[in-house]
Amino acid sequence: MNYLEELKGILGPEQVSVNEAVLDRHSRDESYHEPVKPDAVVFPLNAEEVRRVMKVASKHGIPIVPFGLGTSLEGHVIPYSGGISVDFSLMNQVIEVLPEDFLVKVQPGVTRSQLNQELKKHGLFFSVDPGADATLGGMAATNASGTTSVRYGVMRDQVRDLEVVLADGSIIHTGSLAVKSSSGYNLNGLFVGSEGTLGCFTELTLQVYGIPEMIVAARASFETINQAVDAVVSILSAGIQIARIELVDGQSVAHVNAYSETDYSETPTLFLEFHGNEAGLDQDIEFAKEILTDHECQEFKFEKDVRARNLLWDARHNLAYAVMRASPGKKMMVTDVCLPISQLANGIKSAQEGMHELGFEGGIVGHVGDGNYHAILMIDVDDPDEVARAEKFNERIVAFALSRGGSCTGEHGVGVGKIKYQQQEHGDSLHVMKALKKALDPQNLLNPGKLLQAAERK
Amino acid sequence: MNYLEELKGILGPEQVSVNEAVLDRHSRDESYHEPVKPDAVVFPLNAEEVRRVMKVASKHGIPIVPFGLGTSLEGHVIPYSGGISVDFSLMNQVIEVLPEDFLVKVQPGVTRSQLNQELKKHGLFFSVDPGADATLGGMAATNASGTTSVRYGVMRDQVRDLEVVLADGSIIHTGSLAVKSSSGYNLNGLFVGSEGTLGCFTELTLQVYGIPEMIVAARASFETINQAVDAVVSILSAGIQIARIELVDGQSVAHVNAYSETDYSETPTLFLEFHGNEAGLDQDIEFAKEILTDHECQEFKFEKDVRARNLLWDARHNLAYAVMRASPGKKMMVTDVCLPISQLANGIKSAQEGMHELGFEGGIVGHVGDGNYHAILMIDVDDPDEVARAEKFNERIVAFALSRGGSCTGEHGVGVGKIKYQQQEHGDSLHVMKALKKALDPQNLLNPGKLLQAAERK
Ligand SMILES: Cc1cc2nc3c(=O)[nH]c(=O)nc-3n(C[C@H](O)[C@H](O)[C@H](O)COP(=O)(O)OP(=O)(O)OC[C@H]3O[C@@H](n4cnc5c(N)ncnc54)[C@H](O)[C@@H]3O)c2cc1C
Ligand SMILES: Cc1cc2nc3c(=O)[nH]c(=O)nc-3n(C[C@H](O)[C@H](O)[C@H](O)COP(=O)(O)OP(=O)(O)OC[C@H]3O[C@@H](n4cnc5c(N)ncnc54)[C@H](O)[C@@H]3O)c2cc1C
Repeated sequence: MNYLEELKGILGPEQVSVNEAVLDRHSRDESYHEPVKPDAVVFPLNAEEVRRVMKVASKHGIPIVPFGLGTSLEGHVIPYSGGISVDFSLMNQVIEVLPEDFLVKVQPGVTRSQLNQELKKHGLFFSVDPGADATLGGMAATNASGTTSVRYGVMRDQVRDLEVVLADGSIIHTGSLAVKSSSGYNLNGLFVGSEGTLGCFTELTLQVYGIPEMIVAARASFETINQAVDAVVSILSAGIQIARIELVDGQSVAHVNAYSETDYSETPTLFLEFHGNEAGLDQDIEFAKEILTDHECQEFKFEKDVRARNLLWDARHNLAYAVMRASPGKKMMVTDVCLPISQLANGIKSAQEGMHELGFEGGIVGHVGDGNYHAILMIDVDDPDEVARAEKFNERIVAFALSRGGSCTGEHGVGVGKIKYQQQEHGDSLHVMKALKKALDPQNLLNPGKLLQAAERK
Repeated sequence: MNYLEELKGILGPEQVSVNEAVLDRHSRDESYHEPVKPDAVVFPLNAEEVRRVMKVASKHGIPIVPFGLGTSLEGHVIPYSGGISVDFSLMNQVIEVLPEDFLVKVQPGVTRSQLNQELKKHGLFFSVDPGADATLGGMAATNASGTTSVRYGVMRDQVRDLEVVLADGSIIHTGSLAVKSSSGYNLNGLFVGSEGTLGCFTELTLQVYGIPEMIVAARASFETINQAVDAVVSILSAGIQIARIELVDGQSVAHVNAYSETDYSETPTLFLEFHGNEAGLDQDIEFAKEILTDHECQEFKFEKDVRARNLLWDARHNLAYAVMRASPGKKMMVTDVCLPISQLANGIKSAQEGMHELGFEGGIVGHVGDGNYHAILMIDVDDPDEVARAEKFNERIVAFALSRGGSCTGEHGVGVGKIKYQQQEHGDSLHVMKALKKALDPQNLLNPGKLLQAAERK
């Protein structure tokens, strides 16, 4: 029997699609990586259905590529070896909020904005906020992070338990409801960031936080990026409880202004946020103002008002879309290194020089409290020379980061785009990763050709 | 050639011991688990020597048991299958402090008190503090935690990179200096908590923190444990930035008083600590006082003075030793479940009932901010009935925890003592753990019979 017929038997015909538009939607992410269509797309409703799909795939040796919203940036969801794209959009229920335990159980297709909508009713929020409105399954699979990670940690820090369908069709739990545990190997951590190569997440138990008593946002503009980064280092060293500290260079502020109709000064800018109790915040803010002034901040503006805060963070979150709109027809390449903080200023300086030398006009933004910054380039994928120059630029940035003990990807993940740096970054531990993959997915069914080792293209 | 001769050839004769006193020292931990001597003890000086020892062990099929200070509580370091105990006490250098990056590189034999001594010079501290003065290698291998984990996280959260000698003799790094990374599988997390079963740690890069601007400790006594636990839940829910929140029952306070010459009221007591800036702390403390009063706290005392604070925490840290001194000749059994906070009060109540029913007079203490509590029993290991009753008590406590989504061990680890609960806690994910172990240590050389599956005893 044809495996498509088997799938339709298992799932109901409307949950299996080979419609061209559907295949096309699952052929790409939001980056410059070349699209390739899957052979079929399935829309499971629960873990049991995922398990059955996995069994069919295993029987026929067909690749499985989990698909959240396809907002990843390194070709993660593109089925270069063909196979079945497993779309989790029908598994989009917030299953249970456990306010006393600061936990929530969700299906993998729930998006972060959907989740925060629900949590608000309980005075809670989920902390991780990538620039795109991603699914929690996708965010766990890439170990996503964002503006608040400097205070609340990355996706891995929030995952208390995953229900996972493995390559052999078994369904496991990687953790428990306990805040901490020393029982057995840490499977939570291993599966988070595994980019669909070790299993399909069918349920997530996530840590959430109480909405802070008080939140103050701020914008601080500088003459040079260096001054801004130095101010960041000083703020972190001072022990100020900063919840967000984002760098946006002048060019990117210009994009923001154009897209969000703001009138922020178009110079290197820090977007900040402070969470805490009123008295503590007042003291932190006084201290932060002193530090900003010491670093020759030209102008700062603190916003306690909810509307003004939201405007500021919406503007920051829409930045990549602002850049995209300014270059219609081009595709986005975003570098994503993470450096030890002490190397950040030099890293950004070297990136700017590289951009200049290679003839690009990209912007630089970053979760600088984590040492993570992005250079955003818009490239014409039909111009091989431009693509080659962009690759060279990325290589240069990664080389700098790795030579300083950093990582080639702070949050976007490896996908296909960063495979070539894995040997250099991980050395012999790459063998360990390959051994783990082989132990858990001996047929190499789960998102083959990603994270570890490029696949033969179909 | 005899493998001992080979070891002496590699290490220098004074680094290889079969002296009875040395073997005896490496035959036991600080618990009730039956001691068994290793065949030899080696004292390597660096990763290369560990690698060579590993090669000899592999060639002859001899078990390797890493040994820090032997303070673990579940038989972790006891070589039940014989073999070589690898003692890291000669690898005790703080290699480098990187204040700007809030990092420190240490050898595995450095103890936490030694590290904090060194860090103090830089205005920094290392946050994890088990009750014993353990080595950082041992703490990483058990995923230790302690009084401050409610604020700063557990050992796994502090480990940025490990240098590890694997079973095949290769030397890998599990991480980098970057604050966060989405590059490759999360090996840091996997190796932390692996209890010597996946490799020997030969260097650790750890996150450290700036000593807070202000620290205030407090003691609050209640009539009932329930009131104390309810106060904890309220303090956590209020979003107060609590740095330590420890429960000590009345009986345990009596031990503390006897041992540390304090005169604390011998009723259920919370030991607390607040870290922050002065204004924020003042507000937090006012709020905490209100909450304590609401929960019918009988007496509270806040201490800003360093000496009084240190006295309080020394008393808390010496608690287990106080209990031990009160029962000379007996051995300690410490339960260690971790519960969702919402289940904590009921869990402790059930433990007290169990203690009563089974005729024990133990104390209860706990890192209650994490949902982790310990019942401490002193048992006569030569009395099989007493041992059996103690085991039954532990089983009852674990059963309660697992039925509520908790973990059988919050921080002490599995060792041999908790192997029997692994199937129940992890279900099919135990297969995954076994597959990982097999992939990385196919000969089962590294600490065999621990964590996953009991060994045939030699
Ligand atoms: C404008 C823009 C800004 C961004 N900003 C950030 C940022 O600040 N921080 C950041 O971290 N990322 C950022 N990203 C990248 C992207 O949003 C994240 O990688 C996100 O986590 C992807 O989620 P998704 O639901 O779109 O997953 P997808 O792109 O659909 O999938 C991502 C990976 O997860 C796997 N996967 C998806 N669902 C599952 C599942 N249920 N089980 C197992 N594996 C699964 C896929 O196979 C794939 O490997 C940005 C992207 C854009 C377009
Ligand atoms: C009084 C008392 C109070 C305690 N309180 C706490 C507490 O509050 N929180 C807590 O978490 N624990 C606590 N413990 C338990 C114990 O202190 C911890 O488990 C500690 O982490 C053990 O460290 P160690 O150096 O003694 O390691 P050991 O006991 O020597 O070894 C522990 C494990 O680590 C492995 N290991 C050691 N070194 C290495 C290395 N370099 N590479 C690889 N593996 C290695 C060993 O093989 C073993 O499996 C307490 C113990 C006592 C006696």
